[in-house]
Amino acid sequence: MTPAYKRLDQTPLHGQLQQQATRIQQPDRHLRHLLNDTGRLNTFSRSIPGIFFDFSRQRMDLQTLDLLLSVATELDLCKRFEAMCAGEKINTTEARAVLHTAARQFEGTTLELDGLNVTTEIERVRQEVKEFSAQIQNGTLCGSTGKRFTDIVVVGIGGSYLGTEFVANALAAYANPDMRLHYLANVDIHNFGVVVNATEPATTLWVVISKSYTTAETVANTQLVEHHLDQHGLRSEQHMVTVTAQGSPGDDPTNPVLQSFHMFDFIGGRYSVTSAVGAVPLSLYLGYDHFETFLRGAAEMDHHARATPIENNMPLLAALISVWNTTYLGYQQQAVIPYASPLAKLAPHVQQLNMESNGKSVDAQGQFLPEPAGTVIFGEPGTNAQHSFFQLAHQGRPFPIDFIGVLSPQYQEYTTLSKGVSNHQELWANMLAQSQALALGDENPEKPSRHFTGNRPSSTLVLEDLGPANVGRLLSFYEARTVYESFIWGINGFDQFGVQLGKTVASNLRREMALKNEQPQHRFEKLDEISTYYLNKLFKE
Amino acid sequence: MTPAYKRLDQTPLHGQLQQQATRIQQPDRHLRHLLNDTGRLNTFSRSIPGIFFDFSRQRMDLQTLDLLLSVATELDLCKRFEAMCAGEKINTTEARAVLHTAARQFEGTTLELDGLNVTTEIERVRQEVKEFSAQIQNGTLCGSTGKRFTDIVVVGIGGSYLGTEFVANALAAYANPDMRLHYLANVDIHNFGVVVNATEPATTLWVVISKSYTTAETVANTQLVEHHLDQHGLRSEQHMVTVTAQGSPGDDPTNPVLQSFHMFDFIGGRYSVTSAVGAVPLSLYLGYDHFETFLRGAAEMDHHARATPIENNMPLLAALISVWNTTYLGYQQQAVIPYASPLAKLAPHVQQLNMESNGKSVDAQGQFLPEPAGTVIFGEPGTNAQHSFFQLAHQGRPFPIDFIGVLSPQYQEYTTLSKGVSNHQELWANMLAQSQALALGDENPEKPSRHFTGNRPSSTLVLEDLGPANVGRLLSFYEARTVYESFIWGINGFDQFGVQLGKTVASNLRREMALKNEQPQHRFEKLDEISTYYLNKLFKE
Repeated sequence: MTPAYKRLDQTPLHGQLQQQATRIQQPDRHLRHLLNDTGRLNTFSRSIPGIFFDFSRQRMDLQTLDLLLSVATELDLCKRFEAMCAGEKINTTEARAVLHTAARQFEGTTLELDGLNVTTEIERVRQEVKEFSAQIQNGTLCGSTGKRFTDIVVVGIGGSYLGTEFVANALAAYANPDMRLHYLANVDIHNFGVVVNATEPATTLWVVISKSYTTAETVANTQLVEHHLDQHGLRSEQHMVTVTAQGSPGDDPTNPVLQSFHMFDFIGGRYSVTSAVGAVPLSLYLGYDHFETFLRGAAEMDHHARATPIENNMPLLAALISVWNTTYLGYQQQAVIPYASPLAKLAPHVQQLNMESNGKSVDAQGQFLPEPAGTVIFGEPGTNAQHSFFQLAHQGRPFPIDFIGVLSPQYQEYTTLSKGVSNHQELWANMLAQSQALALGDENPEKPSRHFTGNRPSSTLVLEDLGPANVGRLLSFYEARTVYESFIWGINGFDQFGVQLGKTVASNLRREMALKNEQPQHRFEKLDEISTYYLNKLFKE
Repeated sequence: MTPAYKRLDQTPLHGQLQQQATRIQQPDRHLRHLLNDTGRLNTFSRSIPGIFFDFSRQRMDLQTLDLLLSVATELDLCKRFEAMCAGEKINTTEARAVLHTAARQFEGTTLELDGLNVTTEIERVRQEVKEFSAQIQNGTLCGSTGKRFTDIVVVGIGGSYLGTEFVANALAAYANPDMRLHYLANVDIHNFGVVVNATEPATTLWVVISKSYTTAETVANTQLVEHHLDQHGLRSEQHMVTVTAQGSPGDDPTNPVLQSFHMFDFIGGRYSVTSAVGAVPLSLYLGYDHFETFLRGAAEMDHHARATPIENNMPLLAALISVWNTTYLGYQQQAVIPYASPLAKLAPHVQQLNMESNGKSVDAQGQFLPEPAGTVIFGEPGTNAQHSFFQLAHQGRPFPIDFIGVLSPQYQEYTTLSKGVSNHQELWANMLAQSQALALGDENPEKPSRHFTGNRPSSTLVLEDLGPANVGRLLSFYEARTVYESFIWGINGFDQFGVQLGKTVASNLRREMALKNEQPQHRFEKLDEISTYYLNKLFKE
């Protein structure tokens, strides 16, 4: 039985943080003044090899930082993270362990869970993926007509593809140039239509990803894929693999596929990209070696998040800052703005990871929170975002921003200068300028339309380069930050019952539609007025 | 001189709306109860051919609706929209007219502005685009080596590409299958690297879009493009066109390009997709006829927004609801969730359109607002969003949602059923289920993790199909809604001085970098501690 940890708002620190927020909102604590302190950057930044985390432009001073660090002590945050990594069943509502960190462990520790040797199981699946991806890449395994595979389609939704999409985009420069990666996530027939039109049946491998193999969208899309293969005289045994729980309908020898890879219920969807969920498509696209380098990067950040004392623990500090901004300073949204186009899918990934984890209104003991946890996460790459919604960031409702910069770009060969600087330098000038302008502002009382209040907080994460190891570190950073946030808010960040009600209502509507498909004279008499109106429209009644 | 219109919060209606919000927040006004009223959908929905707007699940009753309608009367909203369309210089800080609606006028009215015949000018450019796109498509105009163009690259950022990206994605099923469209927006060298690797120099046409032709990103990228053409022995005269203001550096005969198309300062970037900005790439990609159908759809919605009395005016009602939700019910963000994958880029477009327009803290007279206007807009297509961030929508911080559904999908040929329904029906079951579940909730006091408070508002927009005309109507709907919001908040929704400070700071940093490129011994002594740290890192000092 998991001990009931204290919730921050039930400790005396809560009142102190509220007072601290009042203090930090005084004009003399404007970021303009805080940033005058010599050594500010040094005091408010941390690093590990590959990644530098600068929170000097957050609205905090040393007193705030000390108070936040004492939150970490008071709530035993490091001990709880350690318990997660050790396999404690901290997802109490579903009685599950939370072991995404185990997916990237290689040597050393062993971990058992309910009689299962987790380490061995993970290593087994990883070896299977390694061998399988090598066989596809060297042409040992081909499609039914003997041609090499050129296209991989991930059939899966939510956590079954968002992490893969983020990593595949980030590392596209490392991909096998003869291999393309597609996503069939949405049940929307437009998604299937586009993928089918973009691929050649004989050289396409479909990777169906669903733990239960009962996800409505994925089941429907898989049926379309099977029909499509059939129409082209191709066989699932040669054109489909599955990533699913052992013994699920997707892992059934009577329904043969080319290969099945196992996923485990101790790794949740939004944390699953380092498991077989990401391993299969990413190894096929990037090659297994790049995938393993990515895993090792994630493992390094895991180690940092697990073993580093509070005051230097980057994801823990980031989580404390996030809660500070949300609960105490009242910001209801956060932006993730990578100044690196390959990270364009980081925001959608973190959006799922964080909002699905922490968008909760009850604590881990089932008590209602005084206000909901979590925050809206959104973002687009810079400088694009500057030309889109940064007007609001500078002069409208403020929101905290994570800027992400990369020191060495993946493309080094273009050296043309414009206004005396390279494109990469121009990009950096912009990123640095945004965080500075947001923090300092610019008083212009005579021209109010050009007045900038400033005091708008941001952090800056700097990656040495955009190689697989750093993408792994970045992934693990946001995962650990999200976990630490859920610990601080006192919620179970690993279930997602909020999606159930919609599924139940959809089932009712689906049943009515299915009836109508069978019996055209069926009327939707059991349904409410609005649903009836729409179903009649859809069935052209 | 534009008359100073009243601001909503300075009228007696403001207090009434605050009281109304208190009333609507009472338990007996929960959406669960409001939706019990027979005829609710009929009362709280409007339509025009092609589009149905359902706001029955917004938190309002008849009394609220009446009050909001009286806001429209009190603030003369329709008259102000009409003044905009007639060329009044409502962008007062920049002394400009706001005439995106003129970009899709065809016959009938003529419009003059400062001695310029707007109608004639717009018709001239449109004819040029029509002829040019026909010549490219029929092969009369080819690249330097005589091969037909197969790839179009839009070189432009913000409003110069976001609208085009939205429309091109929405109508990809209508595109010329032999033509691909790419975007070079970001100054990030990764963007250029990806585009260059994906295109063949001899068959690629670069469309450089910048009103002033001085946008830093576009200037830098254009230099890279010119260098790239040069390296491949190709000439800008045959591989580059520009869309720019008459007489800008991009419209200079001494610097020849294949053709220049004019844009005008009475159409702002975020409103420009129906001008030459969208006309050139979209006509090349979709064919001019589809583009014109799209324009005519937009014109129909313009006419509706301009000529329909308050109580039936859909974008005006949507704007009143948006302000009601933001200013009076306190929602700081809105989601746009199309249940149609081709509309995946609608949210990023509306994000710019709305956040750049209305993210302001001063009114049109330069007075500070009591609280900032505008709201954060974000979104992903459904059902994907359900498997990503809808946990927070159902059980965390609530936010209003625009659901968008399409009755007839672009792909009709896939009829496989799963659980008795087609993919398209499954999609609809989900969309209807989400709005219902969010509104009604589900009391579950014994299992708090499965408790749904409900009362979470949404609207539903239904398009008959996803053809060019409806995409035009949808575009104009969001444009007009944004304009009406800015009128209600009393701000100038057409300038964007909030992006200036960042540009100024970036210029300073660029200058320092340029100096360092020239003189390696240069030290960044004039800069602040943080900037110095980063520039030293970047220059490996």
